[in-house]
Amino acid sequence: MGVDAVLYDKVRAVAWRDGVVRLLDQRVLPATLRYEECATAAEVAAAITAMVVRGAPAIGVTAAYGAVLAVSEAYRRAPTDWRAAARVDLAALRESRPTAVNLGWALDVMERVMETIGAGSPVAAVLAAARRLHDEDIAANRRMGALGAALLPPQARVLTHCNTGALATGGYGTALGVVRAAAATGGIRMVYADETRPWLQGARLTAWELVEEGLPVTVLADGAAAARLRAGDIAAVLVGADRIAANGDTANKIGTYGLAISARHHGVPFYVVAPVSTIDVATPDGHGIPIEERAEGEVLGCQGLTHSPAGARAWNPVFDVTPAALITALITERGVLPSPDAEGMARLLAQPTPV
Amino acid sequence: MGVDAVLYDKVRAVAWRDGVVRLLDQRVLPATLRYEECATAAEVAAAITAMVVRGAPAIGVTAAYGAVLAVSEAYRRAPTDWRAAARVDLAALRESRPTAVNLGWALDVMERVMETIGAGSPVAAVLAAARRLHDEDIAANRRMGALGAALLPPQARVLTHCNTGALATGGYGTALGVVRAAAATGGIRMVYADETRPWLQGARLTAWELVEEGLPVTVLADGAAAARLRAGDIAAVLVGADRIAANGDTANKIGTYGLAISARHHGVPFYVVAPVSTIDVATPDGHGIPIEERAEGEVLGCQGLTHSPAGARAWNPVFDVTPAALITALITERGVLPSPDAEGMARLLAQPTPV
Repeated sequence: MGVDAVLYDKVRAVAWRDGVVRLLDQRVLPATLRYEECATAAEVAAAITAMVVRGAPAIGVTAAYGAVLAVSEAYRRAPTDWRAAARVDLAALRESRPTAVNLGWALDVMERVMETIGAGSPVAAVLAAARRLHDEDIAANRRMGALGAALLPPQARVLTHCNTGALATGGYGTALGVVRAAAATGGIRMVYADETRPWLQGARLTAWELVEEGLPVTVLADGAAAARLRAGDIAAVLVGADRIAANGDTANKIGTYGLAISARHHGVPFYVVAPVSTIDVATPDGHGIPIEERAEGEVLGCQGLTHSPAGARAWNPVFDVTPAALITALITERGVLPSPDAEGMARLLAQPTPV
Repeated sequence: MGVDAVLYDKVRAVAWRDGVVRLLDQRVLPATLRYEECATAAEVAAAITAMVVRGAPAIGVTAAYGAVLAVSEAYRRAPTDWRAAARVDLAALRESRPTAVNLGWALDVMERVMETIGAGSPVAAVLAAARRLHDEDIAANRRMGALGAALLPPQARVLTHCNTGALATGGYGTALGVVRAAAATGGIRMVYADETRPWLQGARLTAWELVEEGLPVTVLADGAAAARLRAGDIAAVLVGADRIAANGDTANKIGTYGLAISARHHGVPFYVVAPVSTIDVATPDGHGIPIEERAEGEVLGCQGLTHSPAGARAWNPVFDVTPAALITALITERGVLPSPDAEGMARLLAQPTPV
């Protein structure tokens, strides 16, 4: 557990500390280890929009703690009518990023808790709910890790995209949780990490998490993934998800869809690893998933420095949608669903979460 | 011709100027317009290795002028035995980069010329040969441009990878030559340019060429190409080539292969645009094409600034190989070859170049 303690138990993307939400600033990692402290729900919403914290499950946990700040502020200002005031802040949190459904899911959980609270200060109850949601996310990740690792051969070489580790979740990770679990059991020969332009979550964050834990990592340009798959040594592609529609269509970081096409072309298993909080039953298929587009400058430059000429435009969708038909299996804390479709997804969601 | 004169007639990637080879430094474009002057063949070889000049046809033209410097130096030192001395320099030029076959092809042309020269100074004859090779490259580009443009609908949206324009060739361009020709006839609605990590030839060079000419360009992360193809508005994918095997398998900038797989998945035509000097009849198929791998730091950082953590490794192949089966047609100055294969390639090469 020594190495374990180094990273995903000690360094947390999001934590509640003495009445503030402390976020590890993922925009400047790994060059700088800097924390941003949010004392209000509005500051939390701004931090989510600015991508201080990113990764669908981590955004969900952050929003839950943001809701605690909202309730706390509202109760201070209006002890008898705090719910109405808090809901304004919750609405702002809900709008802070459009694609990750865990954000709305976490706020739904918090709103339900808010409705059950009696007289007196609601703060302890909502904080307990946020902590529970956080703990459950980590437990879900551990369970997915075990389920996913069982699908890999010993000493596997895997390919992943973006960052899906401790930084992207409450802790441990989804796709990277599978890597962690595999490393602890059959071993991992190599993690090929797409650099993941434009934000370089792979080259910066995934590489950092793996180096810190002494796991082998090789970064590659996103365009090199197909050539790597053709080399024939990749046992599986492992990715996370930001929103999964009711039929299994999966929105994830831009580049995931092309990777899924290439994996299918080469007969390499393509696994989506995500907690059921990522599943949006209200959206029938991928066409209904809102795809965030961010500023053109993120593509026209790198790490804040512009390299394209003035006058060039850019297209900067943050996510793409991988049709369920390209997904070998969906790995959740409730089990592994091969060849996801609407029927299988409904069956999966009807199952209880193992305790 | 006003716009024409602005860029691809006035700004040349490579030019012979008063006894030196003048190269536009493509590593610092578009931020800086800087020329590097090479007075010796060794300097030319070093500039090719350092990617001051890049793009297979431009490398070929540069090597031809490098051969002029080699012959000129050799004749100055050994007027009666200049061929032997020059061949040492030619061998160094030949090794300056491994994948682009136009490099060896241009040096073969120059060596054949060297063999036919009689007594007296050989310089004028080899310079004339290099200029002819340069002019023929531009003429070939113009012819490919016309042939390729005829395959596009009016006001097409196209997607391209890397830079294949005036900067990558003797002038005008291969895949970007098709864009230029189409813009001058049926019009071009939009050129989607993959940024092309790690060197960003798309975001820097293609964007610059198109902005300078007033043509519409939208840069996208390499990982976003599949999502763009899924949007359904791309008429064709146009790419260049660094070496084409005898069966049509094509080595081109890393990322091309994944793009070809995605184009096929979406039913979008995938055109390779390259002069016949790019065809290597001595290599039966793509397995025999040597793929250059460059320094890991090029992937672990961007524009010279490292963003990955110390301890992370990188895989940095500069090219990948697209099997002929994924290529809708090969567009050369000798004609368009649909569904290239060994037989069709042999037929194409047996045809004369139109004059």
